[in-house]
Amino acid sequence: MKNLILASSGSVHGSEYLEYLLPSIDKLYKGVEKVLFIPFAQPGGISYDAYTDQVQAAFNGLGIQVKGIHEYKNYQEAIQQSQGIFVGGGNTFLLVSKLYEFKLWSFLKTAINEGIPYLGTSAGTNIVGLNMKTTNDMPIVLPPSFETLGIVPFNFNAHYIEPETNSKHKGETRATRIKEFQALNNVSVMGLREGSWLRIYGEDIFLRGGLPAVWFVDGTSRVVDANTDCKDL
Amino acid sequence: MKNLILASSGSVHGSEYLEYLLPSIDKLYKGVEKVLFIPFAQPGGISYDAYTDQVQAAFNGLGIQVKGIHEYKNYQEAIQQSQGIFVGGGNTFLLVSKLYEFKLWSFLKTAINEGIPYLGTSAGTNIVGLNMKTTNDMPIVLPPSFETLGIVPFNFNAHYIEPETNSKHKGETRATRIKEFQALNNVSVMGLREGSWLRIYGEDIFLRGGLPAVWFVDGTSRVVDANTDCKDL
Repeated sequence: MKNLILASSGSVHGSEYLEYLLPSIDKLYKGVEKVLFIPFAQPGGISYDAYTDQVQAAFNGLGIQVKGIHEYKNYQEAIQQSQGIFVGGGNTFLLVSKLYEFKLWSFLKTAINEGIPYLGTSAGTNIVGLNMKTTNDMPIVLPPSFETLGIVPFNFNAHYIEPETNSKHKGETRATRIKEFQALNNVSVMGLREGSWLRIYGEDIFLRGGLPAVWFVDGTSRVVDANTDCKDL
Repeated sequence: MKNLILASSGSVHGSEYLEYLLPSIDKLYKGVEKVLFIPFAQPGGISYDAYTDQVQAAFNGLGIQVKGIHEYKNYQEAIQQSQGIFVGGGNTFLLVSKLYEFKLWSFLKTAINEGIPYLGTSAGTNIVGLNMKTTNDMPIVLPPSFETLGIVPFNFNAHYIEPETNSKHKGETRATRIKEFQALNNVSVMGLREGSWLRIYGEDIFLRGGLPAVWFVDGTSRVVDANTDCKDL
């Protein structure tokens, strides 16, 4: 039975890394002693070791040991033998490129479908959708494809935000960008605000965190209230 | 002798499309009666015809006729025979994909190097750099490559903006994204604010519009004053 937390952001304003999510992470990883961390998204170019240390520090209070996938000889086996998985945020192009380079997609998909608890934040959430075409990240590397896990039948826009009222900026808003995407792609998009996450348990997909999300379909959008079961959207 | 205007944005707050740039465009296209417009970036999914009409409306006061490249039978010949070129903004992934699909890169490069006046806004500016890896746009289509014209030996970040003071948003800033880019790519980046443009004339690359720009090199940044000749950076 699928068991995932897909968060918009690793951090929210005014608290430490992952702090706001820890009670939910504790439940997700119930009974798990060691989590496999995938640091490939490397936010700000941080090293895999430093990123893994940062996650370990956040998980110390949960009594969970964190090991980076880069510390294993065989990455595919590391996923096959994992008790729990965490894919952290950063650059989605980088993350997706590495998952293609090491041929890890089918291993991740199998693990998730077998019920291995999966935590994604930001880029780690994006890759659970159909493709990465609605990321906000810069295309710093060219992956061979934009297709991702497709565990949910839609896409994400993490860190979703509306423009500031009275903004004088003319660069495209998120909504405009997603409209451009939907002019070419028949895929719905969940705009997930910082502080929100999807809790997938079996076939249910609840919106958690107390904030509304925005659901983009066919070039239009509507608000999704907190606690909605998004499998019905 | 190269003759280009590379603007951050087609519009600035409080004025009509291209209005702020018209006096400079008038000088760029001196003696040009007909401009070839390349609408492939399709902002917001607008049709090629509607986008071309929008440009014609802006150019009416200059007495310049605008014809969209899509109205020609042979796109390569249209570039070869053009007196002036304008590549408009929108989605850089879409623009770059189409330029590869129709094999137009070498034709654009030749035209620019032969001195055909070139106007770029936003996506049309991005493609004059070495590659499109520092665009802000969404990857709504996968181009075969991110390499672009390389008329200037650096990259652009159009619509450059610093985060709002007191912002609570945790999504990456432009500066963080460019730092991620430079962790993997040894390419300098010009952060060009809305209302700024580069005026390239021969070998000179002046920063115009009265605003400072930001120059990113090796993971650090510095301010570039208005009217600096950027060939010396």
